[in-house]
Amino acid sequence: MLDEKLVFKILCAVGLFFIAQVAVFWAQLQNLDEKKLMLVAEIDTLLRKREELNKKIWLQEKETYRMEDNLQRIDSLVRDRIPRAEMRKGLPFIYFITPTYRRLTQKADLIRLAQTLVYVPNLYWIVVEDANKTSPFITEIFKRYRIKFAHLYALTPPEKKPSEVDPNWKIARGVFQRNKALMWLRDNLSRSKRGIVYFGDDDNTYDWRLFDEMRSIERVGVWPVGLVGGLIVETARLSEGGNVSFNSLWKPERPFPIDMAAFAINLSLALNANALFTYDVPRGYQESHFLTALGLNRNDLELKADGCTKVYVWHTRTERTLLSQRERLKFWRGSLNDIETDAVY
Amino acid sequence: MLDEKLVFKILCAVGLFFIAQVAVFWAQLQNLDEKKLMLVAEIDTLLRKREELNKKIWLQEKETYRMEDNLQRIDSLVRDRIPRAEMRKGLPFIYFITPTYRRLTQKADLIRLAQTLVYVPNLYWIVVEDANKTSPFITEIFKRYRIKFAHLYALTPPEKKPSEVDPNWKIARGVFQRNKALMWLRDNLSRSKRGIVYFGDDDNTYDWRLFDEMRSIERVGVWPVGLVGGLIVETARLSEGGNVSFNSLWKPERPFPIDMAAFAINLSLALNANALFTYDVPRGYQESHFLTALGLNRNDLELKADGCTKVYVWHTRTERTLLSQRERLKFWRGSLNDIETDAVY
Repeated sequence: MLDEKLVFKILCAVGLFFIAQVAVFWAQLQNLDEKKLMLVAEIDTLLRKREELNKKIWLQEKETYRMEDNLQRIDSLVRDRIPRAEMRKGLPFIYFITPTYRRLTQKADLIRLAQTLVYVPNLYWIVVEDANKTSPFITEIFKRYRIKFAHLYALTPPEKKPSEVDPNWKIARGVFQRNKALMWLRDNLSRSKRGIVYFGDDDNTYDWRLFDEMRSIERVGVWPVGLVGGLIVETARLSEGGNVSFNSLWKPERPFPIDMAAFAINLSLALNANALFTYDVPRGYQESHFLTALGLNRNDLELKADGCTKVYVWHTRTERTLLSQRERLKFWRGSLNDIETDAVY
Repeated sequence: MLDEKLVFKILCAVGLFFIAQVAVFWAQLQNLDEKKLMLVAEIDTLLRKREELNKKIWLQEKETYRMEDNLQRIDSLVRDRIPRAEMRKGLPFIYFITPTYRRLTQKADLIRLAQTLVYVPNLYWIVVEDANKTSPFITEIFKRYRIKFAHLYALTPPEKKPSEVDPNWKIARGVFQRNKALMWLRDNLSRSKRGIVYFGDDDNTYDWRLFDEMRSIERVGVWPVGLVGGLIVETARLSEGGNVSFNSLWKPERPFPIDMAAFAINLSLALNANALFTYDVPRGYQESHFLTALGLNRNDLELKADGCTKVYVWHTRTERTLLSQRERLKFWRGSLNDIETDAVY
């Protein structure tokens, strides 16, 4: 009854239908599989990125921690009033040579100077006492203010020592002490070390900007000094023709008519010469003798402090203290009670 | 030829096969769809997490930036040698009153003092010039060292002014100037403000530890001063019976035989009284007059600096500068050139 052909056709139709269906499903499956792969790849990428981000966060946290630490340290330096200047890489050291001698105002002057130097970065304070040993109270000052230091002594022989009533200009002070410091430099520093050498008395006044001026000295730098040599300012100056001249009132014929506080030299110059100070020169010739012995002449002078137009150092002097005779004897005999000792030692 | 039943069976078998096939595909599809949903959800989560991480990184970067900024600032403070002390919450302010007058060493002394005060936290420097206006060079010092300040002036009338050759003790200095500062405090500070008032000359030497000693003063604190009144140390001391006595050589009968640098008072005391300094007292009675006018007696004294056994302040004086007559005239007539002006103004 059924037409064979019809049955075949139906069979074919059903078959085709199912095949088509399967094909569609297959395509969808393929498609989905592809999508799945893409999604899996995407997830993979995201996971990798998460890894990276987490690493970045970790690095950031490490950095934050490091900086927090740094801030803490800086803060504690400020808080403990031990405000040591940061040591700076690449900044040449200043070797600040201070001869000092026993007197009533010595401790006060050294504390005041320490409180000025404590914030000068890369400074090495070489204090040379006119004594036959170093004084513990001075060591204590270095330690308390945490200043890098060399603590030396060199006793001036009695015949070269000005008496308490001698005027300041009569005999040169600090000759043995400055020489001791120079020899210490030559014995302890490598020839290749970069630095600057400055002779700074303990009662001068130093504007912090002076130390910035020194760092760039190639051979010898010079600058004005306030209130010295009977002048408001004693200074070198550039004359017409590019020569350096000076305004000093006193012995202007000296090769370098300037004060000890008016110049600093490159360390290499100090290390590679045997120049020293000496008593074998007339009064006021210490600076000239030393600079000449270093082989320098006026043309070597580098005019710092804005071409020698600014004053960053003053030759202030601390007044001698007026004491009753009894007190004066106590000081010189060393029969001081505890609090008096704390005032001067 | 074909059996109808057989054909039907084949048809059914083929149909069933395809249905089964479709069912399998369908199940797979369902499964994949579900998986796709899960993956999509996972991606969603990951994206959200990435968002969070990015936000976290951004916050960290902001924090790092802020800290870098902070470090930069601190570093530049160190580098520019403007090492201002951190302001500290809860620490009472010290009102450091400095009378000052025109002289050759004024600028040097003020710079040296500024370089000492710059690291004292919570300090307010009240500088009162003996002049008829404020000097720009002094304002510049405050600004350069970034010290909190009040800059005042009060001219001492000519008949009360010591001449250049008068000894230091002949006429009291700073009377008008200290009063000006006291009136400024009373006009400008709230009665409830916590603080300490100290009269500190511009050429004394201050160990930083002195400022720590002041902060805890409830009414009036006292401590030893080095090199004053003909003594190595002038100081109060606790006698037997718990009374306060003094070791002063000069006029020990004064109610408070101490120097201006030897005491500081609580701000509330200064604000709630009308006490001032005056010329209407004998020489050397300024301190006694002022403390008595505040209603204080010896039993009110709080002995600081380890019970008055340590010396943290010295009455150092900067020596008068020896100038040639011509230079001296230039200074007093004001006919200075640029560099001379820089040395003293």
